[in-house]
Amino acid sequence: MTLSRQPLRGMRELYPPQKRVEDYLIGGIRSAARVYGFEEYEAPVLEPLELFLAKSGTELAREQSYNFTDKGGRELILRPELTPSLARMIAAGGELVFPVKWMSFPDCFRYEKPQRGRVREFLQFNLDILGTADPAAELEVFLVLQRIMRTFKVPDSLYRIRYSSRALAAAALRGAGLPEGEAARAFALLDRRDKMPGGDWESWVLESLPGPGGRSVIEYSRCEALDAPWLISAAGGTVAMEELIAFSGMLGAAGVGAAIFDPAVVRGLDYYTGIVFEVSDTGGENRRAICGGGRYDDLVGLFGGLKVSGVGFGLGILTMQLFLETYGLIAEGVAGRHPAAVFLAAYSQEQRGFVLELAERLRDAGIPVETDISGKGLKKQFSLAEKRGIGRLIVIGPEEVATGCLTVRCGSDRESYETDFDSLAGTLA
Amino acid sequence: MTLSRQPLRGMRELYPPQKRVEDYLIGGIRSAARVYGFEEYEAPVLEPLELFLAKSGTELAREQSYNFTDKGGRELILRPELTPSLARMIAAGGELVFPVKWMSFPDCFRYEKPQRGRVREFLQFNLDILGTADPAAELEVFLVLQRIMRTFKVPDSLYRIRYSSRALAAAALRGAGLPEGEAARAFALLDRRDKMPGGDWESWVLESLPGPGGRSVIEYSRCEALDAPWLISAAGGTVAMEELIAFSGMLGAAGVGAAIFDPAVVRGLDYYTGIVFEVSDTGGENRRAICGGGRYDDLVGLFGGLKVSGVGFGLGILTMQLFLETYGLIAEGVAGRHPAAVFLAAYSQEQRGFVLELAERLRDAGIPVETDISGKGLKKQFSLAEKRGIGRLIVIGPEEVATGCLTVRCGSDRESYETDFDSLAGTLA
Repeated sequence: MTLSRQPLRGMRELYPPQKRVEDYLIGGIRSAARVYGFEEYEAPVLEPLELFLAKSGTELAREQSYNFTDKGGRELILRPELTPSLARMIAAGGELVFPVKWMSFPDCFRYEKPQRGRVREFLQFNLDILGTADPAAELEVFLVLQRIMRTFKVPDSLYRIRYSSRALAAAALRGAGLPEGEAARAFALLDRRDKMPGGDWESWVLESLPGPGGRSVIEYSRCEALDAPWLISAAGGTVAMEELIAFSGMLGAAGVGAAIFDPAVVRGLDYYTGIVFEVSDTGGENRRAICGGGRYDDLVGLFGGLKVSGVGFGLGILTMQLFLETYGLIAEGVAGRHPAAVFLAAYSQEQRGFVLELAERLRDAGIPVETDISGKGLKKQFSLAEKRGIGRLIVIGPEEVATGCLTVRCGSDRESYETDFDSLAGTLA
Repeated sequence: MTLSRQPLRGMRELYPPQKRVEDYLIGGIRSAARVYGFEEYEAPVLEPLELFLAKSGTELAREQSYNFTDKGGRELILRPELTPSLARMIAAGGELVFPVKWMSFPDCFRYEKPQRGRVREFLQFNLDILGTADPAAELEVFLVLQRIMRTFKVPDSLYRIRYSSRALAAAALRGAGLPEGEAARAFALLDRRDKMPGGDWESWVLESLPGPGGRSVIEYSRCEALDAPWLISAAGGTVAMEELIAFSGMLGAAGVGAAIFDPAVVRGLDYYTGIVFEVSDTGGENRRAICGGGRYDDLVGLFGGLKVSGVGFGLGILTMQLFLETYGLIAEGVAGRHPAAVFLAAYSQEQRGFVLELAERLRDAGIPVETDISGKGLKKQFSLAEKRGIGRLIVIGPEEVATGCLTVRCGSDRESYETDFDSLAGTLA
């Protein structure tokens, strides 16, 4: 039988050049969060289904995920997101020091039709602060996002951190007369605004919520600032409004230039209760949000005992990569960069022992060295070093063995200089 | 409904201190392999079941793994190991430069009863060289293993790289008269030797393979060196014997002191064809092999087209951790090390803005800084910094804002020194 050479559709299979790009993203994101003192954790890929039925919503857990019954009869799920597992860890965590500031890079799974930027296995970055209701937590989260973007040299003009508040949306729609029972439906409509052409969306809203309800949703969605007259008349003076105005002031004072209020941001996940936000491409090249998050007040309490408020986000590594690639912000060299700093070539088979010895000494000094391990002739070793893209090559022949004097050939034009072991180790270290 | 606070049994859930230990292991292993020029790749967690039925063996794929049928009717498996996916990637890889030298840290799954060192979700380290049949590849793999051990300061006396060759085992047993059809059974018996008390194992072998077959397996298993008389009479002069003698000489010349010949090493996976090896604890504290691997000649060919020989191993990160912990080789500080280098405390709420500004400037310089984001009073900020184990604390009050002169308090005894922003950034960077 011949097996297929293809992985399952939409799975995360990365050859070394693609993995280097992913590692470049992970490294930049990790260092941006690390300077705020965030700590890394891991949660399981495989979880009980009920964990996700409880708060992510039935559609995500049942239809859009990989779930199955194991040999012991338990209903399991390949996690479609990380937050419910995090909430469990916080509830079970014993001696945690609050506020907890954690990050993780979970591999997640969704059973959806793959398309640009949407795959079935995807790496996310998750960052959360739990145990404080102070908006300084939201501010820190936004600062991390800004720092991530700056790490990758993204100008402020290319992205927006669009934020709103579910509490404000609820207050405004209630203030405009929307019946309490229609709030969830209104949120679902708002969440679709940027996924449809504007006119289509409005007609759809009016069909879905006929009468004054639908009109209020549209009016609310058009409020481009916190001081928009419709918004003031619907929600002025409410706690939700005051809090969002205060938060907006904090963003201004801290200089988070890409953050703007956008009433239509509500996020699709059921567990958000307060401020919600998305990061999006201003150019419209990439329609999927790069990142989405918000404050959740009731998630940890599901596990009994203490109530711990949290705020956090998930950022798609692949979505971020597509965004950076759109604007040429990933240097060509990233994918091609082979780890070896130097290739040690044996002039003939007799020098293989000496080459290995020298290579091991350089490796002891932390220098990545490649040598021939296939018994290739000198010409084929040159070719191998070149194909790998290793920048320096040293030929070890009888003279090098006798004198210890080494000639380093650099790059494709073979410019060369002489050195000895100690200087070489010093230069490359 | 109150949800369980426990993850599924045997899953990989790591709080930050445990994750720091895992990261310490990953970091050390990665750097040890990187100096040989190995490149990282990723393969999917979710795979078609037939990929593993084909070569890992039915028992592993069907009974000891998580497998299920997806919504589209495909039989899937959560990978129990990485090698079959690697073989597929090599077969499909187009423009690969051989020898391919790759590594990965896959998350793997087995449906087995959890016990010490055996869990259901586990991180592995995989390293492979493909595209050369030269024993220099095996030698390089052994050198990487030795370097991994040295990275963690493991003395040579605490571990052995026990190696043999499936080809030699087959030749010797054939030479001693074992019928061809009983070779697979004999391998399975040999593979159990170190998992049972010696006497029990021998009786069991004689029951399983009555007559001269069983006796040959026992005689073979007792050959402690390549020049053991029984082995020479059974396999002397065979290609397999000559190759293993040559390889043994290479190991001696390269100074791989922990490597020893052990005839009972055959490895349980069906795809190994040549040299096989295991790393084990000499103290017998940890009975599970830390690492196992070998040469596989026919794996890539399963995908049609070219035949590519490979050699590689899988190393269990948790098994390695238990091994190091047994001998006190993971420093206490590893688990406790909080990322922040300094805590900036606000004397009162009025200084919060300045604290944030200063923190952001330090973060711009790459220095991890923690501040209060919960509106805590000064005493509680002290307490937070201490509980987190952050070594330095600076209080920002009106005077610090006015003069820029900063007092750094170090450690729990609060020894202090004065500095200004630039010197601070310089010292901490």
